[in-house]
Amino acid sequence: MKEIYLDNHSGTRLDEAVYNEMVPYLTDLYGNAQSMHSIGAKSRDALEKARHQVADLIGANDEEVYFTSCGSESNNLAIKGMTEANANKGKHIIVSSIEHFSVLNSAKRLEQSGFQVTTIPVDKYGMVSLDELRNAIRKDTVLVSIQHANPEIGTIQPIEEISKITRGKGVLLHTDAVCTAGIIPINVTKLGVDFLTLAGNQFHGPKGAAALYIRKGVRIIPQIDGGIQENGRRAGTENIPAIVGFGKACEIAKNTMDENYKKLITLRDRLISELPKRMEYIYLNGHPEKRLPNNVNFSVEFVEGEGMLLFLDGEGIYVSSGSACTSKALKMSHVLAAIKADVAIAQGSILMTFSKYNTNEDIDYILNEFPPIVKRLREMSPLYAYFKKTGKRQVAGPGTDYEHEHEQETCPE
Amino acid sequence: MKEIYLDNHSGTRLDEAVYNEMVPYLTDLYGNAQSMHSIGAKSRDALEKARHQVADLIGANDEEVYFTSCGSESNNLAIKGMTEANANKGKHIIVSSIEHFSVLNSAKRLEQSGFQVTTIPVDKYGMVSLDELRNAIRKDTVLVSIQHANPEIGTIQPIEEISKITRGKGVLLHTDAVCTAGIIPINVTKLGVDFLTLAGNQFHGPKGAAALYIRKGVRIIPQIDGGIQENGRRAGTENIPAIVGFGKACEIAKNTMDENYKKLITLRDRLISELPKRMEYIYLNGHPEKRLPNNVNFSVEFVEGEGMLLFLDGEGIYVSSGSACTSKALKMSHVLAAIKADVAIAQGSILMTFSKYNTNEDIDYILNEFPPIVKRLREMSPLYAYFKKTGKRQVAGPGTDYEHEHEQETCPE
Repeated sequence: MKEIYLDNHSGTRLDEAVYNEMVPYLTDLYGNAQSMHSIGAKSRDALEKARHQVADLIGANDEEVYFTSCGSESNNLAIKGMTEANANKGKHIIVSSIEHFSVLNSAKRLEQSGFQVTTIPVDKYGMVSLDELRNAIRKDTVLVSIQHANPEIGTIQPIEEISKITRGKGVLLHTDAVCTAGIIPINVTKLGVDFLTLAGNQFHGPKGAAALYIRKGVRIIPQIDGGIQENGRRAGTENIPAIVGFGKACEIAKNTMDENYKKLITLRDRLISELPKRMEYIYLNGHPEKRLPNNVNFSVEFVEGEGMLLFLDGEGIYVSSGSACTSKALKMSHVLAAIKADVAIAQGSILMTFSKYNTNEDIDYILNEFPPIVKRLREMSPLYAYFKKTGKRQVAGPGTDYEHEHEQETCPE
Repeated sequence: MKEIYLDNHSGTRLDEAVYNEMVPYLTDLYGNAQSMHSIGAKSRDALEKARHQVADLIGANDEEVYFTSCGSESNNLAIKGMTEANANKGKHIIVSSIEHFSVLNSAKRLEQSGFQVTTIPVDKYGMVSLDELRNAIRKDTVLVSIQHANPEIGTIQPIEEISKITRGKGVLLHTDAVCTAGIIPINVTKLGVDFLTLAGNQFHGPKGAAALYIRKGVRIIPQIDGGIQENGRRAGTENIPAIVGFGKACEIAKNTMDENYKKLITLRDRLISELPKRMEYIYLNGHPEKRLPNNVNFSVEFVEGEGMLLFLDGEGIYVSSGSACTSKALKMSHVLAAIKADVAIAQGSILMTFSKYNTNEDIDYILNEFPPIVKRLREMSPLYAYFKKTGKRQVAGPGTDYEHEHEQETCPE
């Protein structure tokens, strides 16, 4: 059976060159980077080489890159560490309503220690309003955290413009760039951010290695206390094999970004334009232009996301149902809720995210396999039967108060 | 050149069987364990299999095992997470003076949020006094954190007796078992602990995976907020390859513990008994009997640890200078300070830690190579010249107030 992996926001296949780079550190070069002997020195050298590769991808200085174990940890470190270090300056932070749960729940945690959190809304495309942001900044605001792009609907935020606002008001800015780093060009200076989260697993690096860019001179309190690893900002034995792989993935991403970007855009746009020609009543979620080159998110009316996911799985097509964040939950994701998607339609949302390993033949296959699945599911749908009979849509039943339903959901970074 | 790795408390060589178990998850099985599709399910299955293997090593239930990225993270989670969840019950905790820095600095961090920390001393062998512990427990004490064994001097604490004291007083007990898990038998019920930290990298598992045992029913606040991974207690995409390797390492450790234990004891005891026969003025640090089977720590008078380390490195023998924790610092480690080691002697301490891959021939090699190195270093030593001339020892000069010098040192777990 053909297998097509379209869940790349949840994680990507390791690049073979990345794997090859890691192997020596999984076998003979097992030294602790803090050990003084020769085998420790080899790990230390590898660590610093990887740090440079990561810095190079995002236009940072090497000493501004701090390794962590995952994007969620980086987001926690940025938000909790920054506010803890600057609590004397103010206890107010701002996030958007469609942030990753590691941002939203970190903010929620801060509320328990006396911080106030303003959650600014987004429009129907998932775009943060610059005016809303400007108005939300107070004298006691210390941090704004707005993602670079959304992992569910793909909308890319105007971070450069956002940073002009925050800088103008003397507020620090964190951006969760887990979905963009390695996929679209990033330069921290140009973006004007003080903190930036990235994770190698999003662009063919391994699980277990991520980073937080911390602009030089910015204070932060470590969230894992212990030894002096990562310049005292993140204790714990460095995961050298994963970090080496992460570094290599950054190097490859940088060197092949142009060609991959073009390829991804082509695949994405073909699917976005062709799929609606083959089935009725489907709607693109997210921004039509300002969106990740590898993100397609459709709501398919009269069917449920989970049904599509399982039937597609049976054909070897691996997708995500609406949101990587809500894959185990049947309710509407907080992102679709935030863009005020119609509940009934949102339940039939499906997320297909590409990588450089996808091909035009994959799109052929999806275009062939997907429409009959939707047809079959609709034939089983009472909602669809009602619509065909009456021409009218049933409104969603009870349970549409989804605003407060997403608190404990999951989201792989 | 022969290479002999004797820095196994800083990290171990990956077992080939562990590596082989990891490879599929570094190549074809790259799914996110939270994804609903087939490739996600494979990661999910692997995650739960590994959880069972870890639980099995320490006599826990599967659902009491929570994966983290490293031992330091587990220690932070136990100490900060437990106290955060139980702050209403009291704001006092107890640690020993020779804990790992991830415990000591977590405790220090708690002091900043209004907790009080009692640090109980140890005797000259590094043993915690049960009377001191008993006396230190107050009405507002919520947690005691005492390591199972010390990574520098190898002393094993009587956790079973300690837990009788803490349970009797209704206080929870955490033990950092990073040095013991996989090396000596552990049963959490028998030990009577509520939290236990272990890390696979200490017994031929990979870097990047560790765990915290949390006894069922015990409350804890996550330190990495985000998704519902690890039952909501540790967010972030699961590092499946490392976790799979960690699980396999636990399985192997359990199945081979008896034979490895005997082997390690033989190597350790041979070195401890033979080395002093080949050089004068060397002293064993740590407990003569209640010590890790793979730990040898000698103080070699009239030489510096770093000198020995570098000369041994030149002969392909990789050791640690005194403490894995202080490898980059020249000052005395907090552990040697706590056992009130003589400053001058402690500076010449050297830590040799074994694994199942070491052999009797390794000991032959060390016994041949090490004494001439010490002889050469002593020939360069003015302290030794003075001693040979006068028969008297020079006292250590200024800087002997080492009690407060170790705050920012590092310690790989």
